[in-house]
Amino acid sequence: MRELKTLFWRNGNLYLLDQRLLPHRERYFRCRSYRDVAWAIKEMVVRGAPAIGVAAAYGMVLACKSSRWSGRSFEAKLRKAAETIKSTRPTAVNLFWAVDRMLKVAEKAISGGEDVYRRLLEEANGILQADIETNRRIGEFGKGLIPDRSTVMTYCNAGGLATAGYGTALGVIRAAYDGGKNISVLVPETRPKLQGARLTAYELKKLGIPYRIITDNMAAMLMSQGYVSCVVVGADRILAKTGHVINKIGTLGLAIAASYYGIPFYVAAPLSSIDFKSSPQEVKIEERDASEVTTIAGRSIAPRGSHAVNLAFDITPPGLVSAVITEHGVYEPVGLMALERYIRGELG
Amino acid sequence: MRELKTLFWRNGNLYLLDQRLLPHRERYFRCRSYRDVAWAIKEMVVRGAPAIGVAAAYGMVLACKSSRWSGRSFEAKLRKAAETIKSTRPTAVNLFWAVDRMLKVAEKAISGGEDVYRRLLEEANGILQADIETNRRIGEFGKGLIPDRSTVMTYCNAGGLATAGYGTALGVIRAAYDGGKNISVLVPETRPKLQGARLTAYELKKLGIPYRIITDNMAAMLMSQGYVSCVVVGADRILAKTGHVINKIGTLGLAIAASYYGIPFYVAAPLSSIDFKSSPQEVKIEERDASEVTTIAGRSIAPRGSHAVNLAFDITPPGLVSAVITEHGVYEPVGLMALERYIRGELG
Repeated sequence: MRELKTLFWRNGNLYLLDQRLLPHRERYFRCRSYRDVAWAIKEMVVRGAPAIGVAAAYGMVLACKSSRWSGRSFEAKLRKAAETIKSTRPTAVNLFWAVDRMLKVAEKAISGGEDVYRRLLEEANGILQADIETNRRIGEFGKGLIPDRSTVMTYCNAGGLATAGYGTALGVIRAAYDGGKNISVLVPETRPKLQGARLTAYELKKLGIPYRIITDNMAAMLMSQGYVSCVVVGADRILAKTGHVINKIGTLGLAIAASYYGIPFYVAAPLSSIDFKSSPQEVKIEERDASEVTTIAGRSIAPRGSHAVNLAFDITPPGLVSAVITEHGVYEPVGLMALERYIRGELG
Repeated sequence: MRELKTLFWRNGNLYLLDQRLLPHRERYFRCRSYRDVAWAIKEMVVRGAPAIGVAAAYGMVLACKSSRWSGRSFEAKLRKAAETIKSTRPTAVNLFWAVDRMLKVAEKAISGGEDVYRRLLEEANGILQADIETNRRIGEFGKGLIPDRSTVMTYCNAGGLATAGYGTALGVIRAAYDGGKNISVLVPETRPKLQGARLTAYELKKLGIPYRIITDNMAAMLMSQGYVSCVVVGADRILAKTGHVINKIGTLGLAIAASYYGIPFYVAAPLSSIDFKSSPQEVKIEERDASEVTTIAGRSIAPRGSHAVNLAFDITPPGLVSAVITEHGVYEPVGLMALERYIRGELG
């Protein structure tokens, strides 16, 4: 089976592999405007912090296409598009990172009299290519942490589908597997949206890496029985100042259980997921609609009128994280400020 | 809304509220033979350790009805029925407790020349009545542990539906609520069979106690944010010799997280759930069909051909359990052997 691209640009449109329909249907969703992109991010047609960042970058290209060049009002329109795209999901930091980067490029191009549309498209293409390259480097740095003849637990989907390609946490697993290690993967289903059962299983199947799906609540028992060699997850945002990791709801419970059983717990994420400014109190944890909890695949699983909580992310303290794997190497969670030097020079 | 009976006996048949259909349909499943009862236990028409025990007791009554009285071969038939019923689910101890108790009563009645059917029916009725009374006493002993103005997390369904009525863990919550305490309940959905979202929510709604459903993986985050005052769960088996608690898969993860955040973790269970003989290694943890994980409400949620693990229970060590609430009082998990005196005299 061939690997499908998470997203691509063609003839002035952005195409997103519609992740709501996987694993049963492989269909692309076409975005013709930045509003289409914003909608697709909100509805999770595309999800995963790095993939959202790349999609958002192309969203800014589409905003440029649909705005007529007219000096100040053009810039205002771009800024409005940026706000719309940034307002879709509050937690992952890649979204803000990508949109702000595109805005800066646009401003520079405008003041320099360049072809803004072309500059933005080049930049978005660059972000996409860099993301794949970044993931490969994360895989190279992380693969040594995965023991041979081991069972690795991942969580949610931090694979090629969560990025422009290859994956972060799944990239590490993949690099270890491709390096000849005998690995099997435990895949918690990841309620409510089932990214584990639907997306990670889909990717592992395509890659030919053995896997077994579990319900999320089974993880601690499997750890207690010695079935888990290590855990590797992605991140939606990592706070460099304190070392806290914000990731899909359920990550914290896995990290606590792993720590209780002395199992290494790794987080794999690119620099674009690292927030060098915020403290844990400043991070907005997205709350999604209760119906995602009270229904599954369109069917109600609870009594009519039941209330539900639907927090999309949780916050794992640094003491529960063995290491953070980035494209610049493996770091302790409390040592991430050292990476700030890489972003200073980023836009030259 | 009126409360429905979990099970009742009428005109020589056992009626079980079909828990596979809740919360959307309230329909009774009629058992005309012990084989019907065995099937219903295996398929989880009836579930919950105490309710399974009561259903199994009536199963023995049905076995007697369908066997013709003929001395030794009659006893052999009863023993065969007992084996069939006991082979349905390996983990909860109430099943074995109830069937063995019924067998003893039958043997005594046979040797004493009594009407065996009548004696068994009396005994089953007695077990049912005693179970409700037991739950009320558990509620009375436990309610003092629940703070006023608190949010209590329970797990799976340890309510009236898991027993002959009233409930164990939910009985404690109910007794505290009826005693005037301002309580709201957090209900983890409990994958794969969703007993929390389907059954506990159904009961709480009928009782008018405020509740919110969460996905299982949300529990640790809510604990970390200070939203959980205490956790009260039931048990399928408690090992008195070591203090280990065997309960629905996911209990262990909750207990580890509760311990990490210093949140009290209580187990409510009757004497009939306590195993005074086994060590943790001797307990068989039921593995159910993988399709329970890879499908939800009949719909596939994973790629075709995906493997899944489906352990139905986990084992929580005594160090994570604050107290065990029984009908004889509140005990430390390592102090349960003291309860053995109550079972010695049980059959006189």
